[in-house]
Amino acid sequence: MAQYQAPLDDIRFVAHDLLGLTDHYPTLHGVEPPDRETFDLMLEQGGRFSEQMLHPLYRSGDDSGCDFNGGQVRLPKGYRQAREQFVASGWPGLTAPIRWGGQALPRSVGIAINEMMCATNPPWVMLVGLPSGVMMAVEAHGDEWQKQRFFPGLVDGRFSATMCLTEPHCGTDLGILRTRAEPQADGSYHITGTKIFISYGEHDCADNIIHLVLARLPDAPTGTAGISMFIVPKLMVHEDQSLGERNRVSCGAIEHKMGYAASPTCVMNFDAATGYLVGKPNEGLKYMFVMMNDARIGSGMAGLGLANASYQGALAYARERLQMRSLSGKKNPGGAADPIIVHPGVRQLLLTQKAFTEGCRALCLDAARYGDLAEYGADESIRKAASHRLGFLTPIVKGFVTEVSNECVSHGVQVLGGHGYIREHGMEQLMRDCRVSTIYEGTTQVQALDLLGRKIMLDQGRAMNAMIAEIDAFCEQHQVHTRIGAHAQLLRGKLADWQALAGEVGTAAMKDPDEAGAASVDFLLYSGYVLLAWYWLRLTLAAEQKLANDGDAHFCQGKFKAADFYFARLLPRTLALAASIRAGGSSLMAVTDEEF
Amino acid sequence: MAQYQAPLDDIRFVAHDLLGLTDHYPTLHGVEPPDRETFDLMLEQGGRFSEQMLHPLYRSGDDSGCDFNGGQVRLPKGYRQAREQFVASGWPGLTAPIRWGGQALPRSVGIAINEMMCATNPPWVMLVGLPSGVMMAVEAHGDEWQKQRFFPGLVDGRFSATMCLTEPHCGTDLGILRTRAEPQADGSYHITGTKIFISYGEHDCADNIIHLVLARLPDAPTGTAGISMFIVPKLMVHEDQSLGERNRVSCGAIEHKMGYAASPTCVMNFDAATGYLVGKPNEGLKYMFVMMNDARIGSGMAGLGLANASYQGALAYARERLQMRSLSGKKNPGGAADPIIVHPGVRQLLLTQKAFTEGCRALCLDAARYGDLAEYGADESIRKAASHRLGFLTPIVKGFVTEVSNECVSHGVQVLGGHGYIREHGMEQLMRDCRVSTIYEGTTQVQALDLLGRKIMLDQGRAMNAMIAEIDAFCEQHQVHTRIGAHAQLLRGKLADWQALAGEVGTAAMKDPDEAGAASVDFLLYSGYVLLAWYWLRLTLAAEQKLANDGDAHFCQGKFKAADFYFARLLPRTLALAASIRAGGSSLMAVTDEEF
Repeated sequence: MAQYQAPLDDIRFVAHDLLGLTDHYPTLHGVEPPDRETFDLMLEQGGRFSEQMLHPLYRSGDDSGCDFNGGQVRLPKGYRQAREQFVASGWPGLTAPIRWGGQALPRSVGIAINEMMCATNPPWVMLVGLPSGVMMAVEAHGDEWQKQRFFPGLVDGRFSATMCLTEPHCGTDLGILRTRAEPQADGSYHITGTKIFISYGEHDCADNIIHLVLARLPDAPTGTAGISMFIVPKLMVHEDQSLGERNRVSCGAIEHKMGYAASPTCVMNFDAATGYLVGKPNEGLKYMFVMMNDARIGSGMAGLGLANASYQGALAYARERLQMRSLSGKKNPGGAADPIIVHPGVRQLLLTQKAFTEGCRALCLDAARYGDLAEYGADESIRKAASHRLGFLTPIVKGFVTEVSNECVSHGVQVLGGHGYIREHGMEQLMRDCRVSTIYEGTTQVQALDLLGRKIMLDQGRAMNAMIAEIDAFCEQHQVHTRIGAHAQLLRGKLADWQALAGEVGTAAMKDPDEAGAASVDFLLYSGYVLLAWYWLRLTLAAEQKLANDGDAHFCQGKFKAADFYFARLLPRTLALAASIRAGGSSLMAVTDEEF
Repeated sequence: MAQYQAPLDDIRFVAHDLLGLTDHYPTLHGVEPPDRETFDLMLEQGGRFSEQMLHPLYRSGDDSGCDFNGGQVRLPKGYRQAREQFVASGWPGLTAPIRWGGQALPRSVGIAINEMMCATNPPWVMLVGLPSGVMMAVEAHGDEWQKQRFFPGLVDGRFSATMCLTEPHCGTDLGILRTRAEPQADGSYHITGTKIFISYGEHDCADNIIHLVLARLPDAPTGTAGISMFIVPKLMVHEDQSLGERNRVSCGAIEHKMGYAASPTCVMNFDAATGYLVGKPNEGLKYMFVMMNDARIGSGMAGLGLANASYQGALAYARERLQMRSLSGKKNPGGAADPIIVHPGVRQLLLTQKAFTEGCRALCLDAARYGDLAEYGADESIRKAASHRLGFLTPIVKGFVTEVSNECVSHGVQVLGGHGYIREHGMEQLMRDCRVSTIYEGTTQVQALDLLGRKIMLDQGRAMNAMIAEIDAFCEQHQVHTRIGAHAQLLRGKLADWQALAGEVGTAAMKDPDEAGAASVDFLLYSGYVLLAWYWLRLTLAAEQKLANDGDAHFCQGKFKAADFYFARLLPRTLALAASIRAGGSSLMAVTDEEF
């Protein structure tokens, strides 16, 4: 299995040289912000933990999977120890409020570290990643009693957490969920229903599990307006934090999946389980969406982490594997053949991986930065503007980044050929594990509708126009720049076309709403390609600056050349996407059920 | 797991209405050609066998995998019985010469049936598919003694077969293979070396296994000019067909793979194993390529079979799964939600599957038709022209069809969302099994170089120009046709651009050969999209004809609409490919090793 090297240099480059991430931390209210040195130190710790603790468990966890027996789930060997070390490092409380023992660090710190953990062991990350989302929702909407009962255990690592949304008949369409909540005399509720696809719904590596469950109150309105949120602990928690009797929630089965074998995906049965209403009745879905932006950026980051791991594996193999001679003459005359990295077809795969992962890293971390500002920005106008931008970026980060990440992990298999298809080198596991990223937290199709419908049309294009104005100003400013001037001019054309496409689709959708749906996925991808082009220009400028400051020449030249590759060979995909969008939805909608 | 329905109607439509496949059978010399009714009957038998015998073993074989113990390999439950039924039906000898008990049927019959078998159980198909390739090579180049010894067992099913090419240090680059062959006094050879990735190198479902092995004679020239071909039986075969002692060939291990778990991928150790030279010394690689065209068309067919199975599974699910309301108003007002087939994003995935699988079926069967003519055509000029065309089509069939098939099986997972990612519905298995199709029998990158380098540049564009002339004449003839006129005009433009691209790349490659490699994969895909456009126009005309003859209206309308979808939403990808090709290879080649 290829060794993984935490891409610390590149994360630092994006965080500091491109985004000035820690510069905005001092504006975050109420916390002692980490400075650049602290950020780097945490990054190193996260990288070391990923390389040394998580990566060695990746293959073995996939081989063994989880053991399900009589409602009990045993996680793979080493999972408990890795979690114990994670807990001992204080990481469960990284972004949690200080009053509950957390460190209240900006979420972007956690997201940056998350990339490396996901690159080395994504199924394990789910075990430790869910509590922060649950705390985020309960912090915003739960009452003091709920926080006192459940936060200490989540922060000190005694408890893990889940989110229970999906049911057998509904995943995307939560409006039709059936799990019921009956009010009890003591103010609690009895929750009854079946939830599926619940990651870590049951396992043996924490003292307790806190489920955040969506359910319907009696006489709740139908649809999404009738969904409430409840806390349902596996074991009851006493005031002194000791654990009480078992709640009526149990795991009925675990799924067998394409990947993520080490992460138990549970069928959870709630049989009049005791639950506590979070916030107001019927507001549950809204609360759930509080953490969605965060989770969706995390999904993008997870996808690109796997893509980067695949790039590393493919690159190492391409440098060593001797096969055929270069078309332009022997490059390794002393060897039996040339290393395959000399072949253009292999380089195309590798550079596609490089351009996507490094470009997406900038996009994801920038989105995480807006997430910080949206939550902790110094004043309301900053928070509002950041939230607006974040809302626009989120479906692109989730939808586009996971789609191109799936392309990248498949390329990684291809570089190794038959050796990529066998398990030994680990490339196929990256592909299997990445495949779910375009599905969970809302499929690409759902992201695409979110972008075009809610974030552009309902917004009357404001967020998009602000984005375009910012990028266009950047391009105008640099259109005679030696290195990026020509690219900047090209990008201005793409921006104009992007805006035109939004207008054309919007007009068509007013007559026929299906036109929006028919354009949506291609439009989301188009948006991603344009944004990534902008990040690649900015990465180029940051690399120029770095080079001028005696930065590593290979590193900086690599950025210049990856940007050139992106503009030459990947950005042209916008041509196909634009043509496909402009062809309209009639060819999709005209087919009757019998004609498929 | 979704049920598979053999697409008999569509295969018959392509075979008869589009290609008139059986019309050319009477021109095949020396055999009693099957007429349309016989062809249909065999197709039905193949379909029934696939649906009823192979499909039920697909999931269980994946679950159990193969058992390796002390050099012995036990295949999954049911594999032996399925093979026995295959043998009892006389299928091992379907295309084998009559004098050895075969039926000498045109290969296109076998390839058409192969699609359905691959759609239902591709790992099993490898067990029965390899002997025909081995017989093809030995029939062409082996001596009478070899045929007398080994053909009866291959035809009557007592023997299975393998091809042993790959070694640990070489797959694509067979020129550097190391396995040695030492001549013995009795005219046989002692073969010594290690071969890897040998499908069914060892198993318990045939009496004997005939290995076709590439090895080097002492003092053979280096490189591909020094490779010879040998027959190495697992058990020696006596003149009376009884089996003798065990040869010195053994299975050292089997690989664990992403898919194809039921097909043992063996490490084979040859320790001075007795082998028989096929044909002349040092001609082995040339002989191996005799069967390559056939195998590569089979690979394309296998890929599209899986894509079609995925389409069937996704379509059935999309019709039943209720989730969200149509953007344009409720379509299933009595239900809790609308079936997801109403959503444009889902339709885009399904129609992409439909347009690719049905279009590629036409392409693959047409290539199989040229394969028949190349082998059995009535006169030399027919054979030569067919062979020329087949050589041009082969890398496109192998490279393009398997690439888009991989896209299709991933879309199948996406349509089912989380249910696609779990094993229960079988969609993820199709994706895992399909992944190898762009790797085996020469990767897409190898196909791309074959197309652009050998089949276009070395050929001085003759085959391509003939192809373009044929398509262009078709388009000209139909450019005012009511239904396809506009598409035909569009396609003429693509043809001109295709030719221009070949010229531009050829010119650039004369200065720098890496320019050919840098363009090759995009050029291969471009070629595939253009060809598929032509087949979709022809399918449309065939459907018009069928409709006029009281053919099923849904079926025919489905063709018209899939063609419209293809031109509207898939053919535009040529714009991106052309731009990427024209951007040239400099951005790929400029990156130094340290800059990756």
